[in-house]
Amino acid sequence: MKLTTLYASLRSDLSYVEKELEKIVEAKHPILQQASFELLKAGGKRIRPGLVLLSAKFGHYDIEEIKKVAVTLELIHTASLVHDDVIDDAETRRGKQTVKAKWDNKTAMYTGDYLFAKAIEYITLIEKPEAHQLLSRAIHELTIGEIEQIRYQFVWDQNLRHYLRRIKRKTALLIAISCQLGALASDAAKEIQLHLYRFGYFVGMAFQITDDILDYTGTEKEIGKPAGGDLKQGHITLPVLYALSNEEIRTAILPSFKNGKISNEDLAKVLDIVKQSGGIAYSKKISDRYLQKAYEELEYLPNIPAKKSLIQIAQYIGSRKF
Amino acid sequence: MKLTTLYASLRSDLSYVEKELEKIVEAKHPILQQASFELLKAGGKRIRPGLVLLSAKFGHYDIEEIKKVAVTLELIHTASLVHDDVIDDAETRRGKQTVKAKWDNKTAMYTGDYLFAKAIEYITLIEKPEAHQLLSRAIHELTIGEIEQIRYQFVWDQNLRHYLRRIKRKTALLIAISCQLGALASDAAKEIQLHLYRFGYFVGMAFQITDDILDYTGTEKEIGKPAGGDLKQGHITLPVLYALSNEEIRTAILPSFKNGKISNEDLAKVLDIVKQSGGIAYSKKISDRYLQKAYEELEYLPNIPAKKSLIQIAQYIGSRKF
Repeated sequence: MKLTTLYASLRSDLSYVEKELEKIVEAKHPILQQASFELLKAGGKRIRPGLVLLSAKFGHYDIEEIKKVAVTLELIHTASLVHDDVIDDAETRRGKQTVKAKWDNKTAMYTGDYLFAKAIEYITLIEKPEAHQLLSRAIHELTIGEIEQIRYQFVWDQNLRHYLRRIKRKTALLIAISCQLGALASDAAKEIQLHLYRFGYFVGMAFQITDDILDYTGTEKEIGKPAGGDLKQGHITLPVLYALSNEEIRTAILPSFKNGKISNEDLAKVLDIVKQSGGIAYSKKISDRYLQKAYEELEYLPNIPAKKSLIQIAQYIGSRKF
Repeated sequence: MKLTTLYASLRSDLSYVEKELEKIVEAKHPILQQASFELLKAGGKRIRPGLVLLSAKFGHYDIEEIKKVAVTLELIHTASLVHDDVIDDAETRRGKQTVKAKWDNKTAMYTGDYLFAKAIEYITLIEKPEAHQLLSRAIHELTIGEIEQIRYQFVWDQNLRHYLRRIKRKTALLIAISCQLGALASDAAKEIQLHLYRFGYFVGMAFQITDDILDYTGTEKEIGKPAGGDLKQGHITLPVLYALSNEEIRTAILPSFKNGKISNEDLAKVLDIVKQSGGIAYSKKISDRYLQKAYEELEYLPNIPAKKSLIQIAQYIGSRKF
């Protein structure tokens, strides 16, 4: 199942959102425009706008209102990727050179700032203070998540709780908010908003865990960046966290890192060790558990066609290869 | 005249704002907290909170409501300084080591992101979508201003218009918004809000021009960073812009820069050339013109004590040495 198939019913509205995104990044500054534009054109899965539109179907769906949320969420997501790439010294993203690689860290910083600012401005087109509050809180958590990601780099003594809290802030909350704000913008009932928030949260957790698995199992072609990047950067994600819980494996892995660096040769070895540790299967199990919880939230929602699409998105996340 | 004297009538409210700022940066992340905290404690002139409080006096002054704006504006200002220091490779700010010098660019980037996020979240405590809109637009312009600052670095062929547009975005709009939002938060009449906005805009322009003058005339002790930093970084501000309009001086200055670098020895010479070019007096004249316009805006406002304080702030800006 491809996401484009899932989105079939939303195609025209999603491309409307897409056009709006393009219009927004038409900044007067040439580098800025090019940087933002390339990034957006490079694609990405548009998970957030898709979820916004589907969630809005549970209320009074008016694309003019809904697009404000959809555009905002994609802008924030894109902004956070630009800043993430600075942290990770990432050279490629979505199969293309990152802003920081093509230009430099400073340009990347300001491109991110600009996209954040645009996003915040765009959400105020919705004249609902509650929407602004929910969004700004999520952004606040997002920035703490980013900072914690640095804080826990190369920290080998962390536990599952640290990891889950980090991916909640870094990924799940923004996806949760996409669903909630979609429903809020269409004036869906409060209860529906909350179930959609929870659905988004669980889906978001599964999404990030899957992302972290793919960094071990995916090929560069599939994931648009070299595999093993997380570990190389010292990001302790679920697969290696599981592996580290075995003292023998731990002793085999840790000496490969010297002053926060690992050779490509050693990296390949450590990736293999993690894969053989059962860390992938364990991560998959945790991800599936979150997906299960996501499905359960949907049971509270009315049986409209959008509900089926939400289920399919959750299924896609459970099975995606990129 | 010292700012602290000006603020005498606001002392208890300003220190209330100060306490709130400290509370806000009490993040759980130790580096983040230390970075934000030191930055805030290092002081700065609190021009923006001061203007917010004074502007609010023209409406129904309720410190609980007003502080939301005052805190927000100081947070945004601080956030933009942190990111600015990354761009400028600045080692000191307000007489202390910058975040990027004490830690690194990445930490500075995220500290800025975090403070921005906190600000945006804080303003939503005011349940007025208009306030959110005005603020987000100003932030948007601010980010463009930051980008233009990079774009025009070492660009010797720029004119007064480029410079004024840049300082408008970088400084004046945020000061204008401080006044406008203070008035808006206290439900002052629309017309009063607009005059205060314009007052703030003119004061902000004068403030930045004065800042740019001080970078030529101030001592390191006075301005909390080495003099001539702007020029060294290739920032073409008003004094040198004026000097460059003289072909002879231009020919004397430009060869000192080689691949965007200038030796400290040459820098001292160029600073002298600019000072002798009449560029300082010219800049002072332009600044005074803006201050004059600021005073004129105040004529439309009722004669309450806050008005006298606004006049004094404008006078302070015209005469400040740091």
